[in-house]
Amino acid sequence: MKLAIVVYQDLTLLDLVGFTDAIQRLKTMKFLPDLQIQYFAYRADVSDTFGFKVQVDLVQPDLSTFDLVFIPGGFGTRTLIHDATFVRWLRSAQKIPLKISVCTGSLLLGAAGFLENRKATTHFDEYNLLHQYTSEVVKADLVEDQGIVTGGAVATSILVGLHTCQILTGKTQAMEIAKRMGLPDLYENADVQIY
Amino acid sequence: MKLAIVVYQDLTLLDLVGFTDAIQRLKTMKFLPDLQIQYFAYRADVSDTFGFKVQVDLVQPDLSTFDLVFIPGGFGTRTLIHDATFVRWLRSAQKIPLKISVCTGSLLLGAAGFLENRKATTHFDEYNLLHQYTSEVVKADLVEDQGIVTGGAVATSILVGLHTCQILTGKTQAMEIAKRMGLPDLYENADVQIY
Repeated sequence: MKLAIVVYQDLTLLDLVGFTDAIQRLKTMKFLPDLQIQYFAYRADVSDTFGFKVQVDLVQPDLSTFDLVFIPGGFGTRTLIHDATFVRWLRSAQKIPLKISVCTGSLLLGAAGFLENRKATTHFDEYNLLHQYTSEVVKADLVEDQGIVTGGAVATSILVGLHTCQILTGKTQAMEIAKRMGLPDLYENADVQIY
Repeated sequence: MKLAIVVYQDLTLLDLVGFTDAIQRLKTMKFLPDLQIQYFAYRADVSDTFGFKVQVDLVQPDLSTFDLVFIPGGFGTRTLIHDATFVRWLRSAQKIPLKISVCTGSLLLGAAGFLENRKATTHFDEYNLLHQYTSEVVKADLVEDQGIVTGGAVATSILVGLHTCQILTGKTQAMEIAKRMGLPDLYENADVQIY
C-alpha cells in the first residue's frame, strides 16, 4: 500500500498533519504495517504559510503507480489552479484509485479534472470557486464519491484521515484509531456524505 | 508577545501543529499582529516519530524572557523526564507566566517542577505517570490552573490552541478563529476545567 502526499509552497500544515497523524497509526497499531508514505513536491522548496519547512522525498515524480494520493489545502492553491505545469504533473495521478484532499486541496483535484462527475467539498469560503470543477458542491465536513474523498475546512483534516483509515481497513479499526487520538465523538458525529 | 515552542526528537507533530494553526491565526486575523513564534530545540536534530523534520531557530537558549512557552507531547518524553540536562534547560522557563502543553508534554512540565500545587491532565494512558508531578490529575480535555494549561490526547491540540487564543485575546476572538477553522462545536463543547 503506497501513499503519495503532494506538497507545495504555502500549504496549510494542519491539513497535512491532521491527516497523517491518523494514517500513520495504521502502521503503529499494525492494521496496515506495510503502508509506505512519501512526500512529493511540485518544487524542491516547500514551506507552509508561516515558513515551517516540509522536507520532501522527490520533486515531480510520476504518480501513476501509487495506491492513494493525498493533497492538503493552503493559500498556494489559488495560483496552482492556474499553473499548467503543476496541473500536468498532478494529472499523472489520474489512475490512482483513491484521491483525497482537505480544505482547498479539492481545488487542485478539480483543476486536474479529477472531480468531473463527482460531488465534492472544500473550505466554506471557497464553495463558489469549486463549482467550476465538480458536478455538485456539497456543504459537509467530508464527501466521498467513487474514489474521491474531500474534506471541508482545516479542522476536518483529522476526520479525513480517520475516514481514509476506514476505507482502507474498516470502521472498527478507524474507531480504535479515533479513540487512541482522543476523538471518537468527532469521528462518529461528523457530517459525512457518501455517494 | 513572544512565544517559545520547545521541540525535541520523537515529538508528536499533530500536538505541535494543531496548537500552532490556531495560534498563528492571532497574527493573520490581526488579533495579535506582533506575536512572535520561535522553535527552540533540546538538540539540533528534531524530527517526529515518523521522521518528519522540524526546523529549529536555536538550540537550548535561555527561555526566561518569553511570555509563553508551549511543549508538545510524544514518545520522546519518556526518556526526557529522566534527562537531567533537558530538565535543567526547561527550568529556564520557570518565570514564564503561561506554560502550555498537549498530551504527554505535561510530563515534561511536571519533570521541571512546574506542576507543583497545580492540577493538570495528559494522554489518558499516562494519568499514572503524571500523578508524581501534580497536585491532582484531572481527566478532562483541557485543564487550566493558574498559568498552567495542559491538554489531553493529541486531538486536543487544536482546543489547547483555541483556549490559549482565548486567554491572550478573549473568547469572542477565539470563537472567530474556531469558526474560521471549521470547528466551533469542539471549542464550545469540550470538557475544559479551569481552577
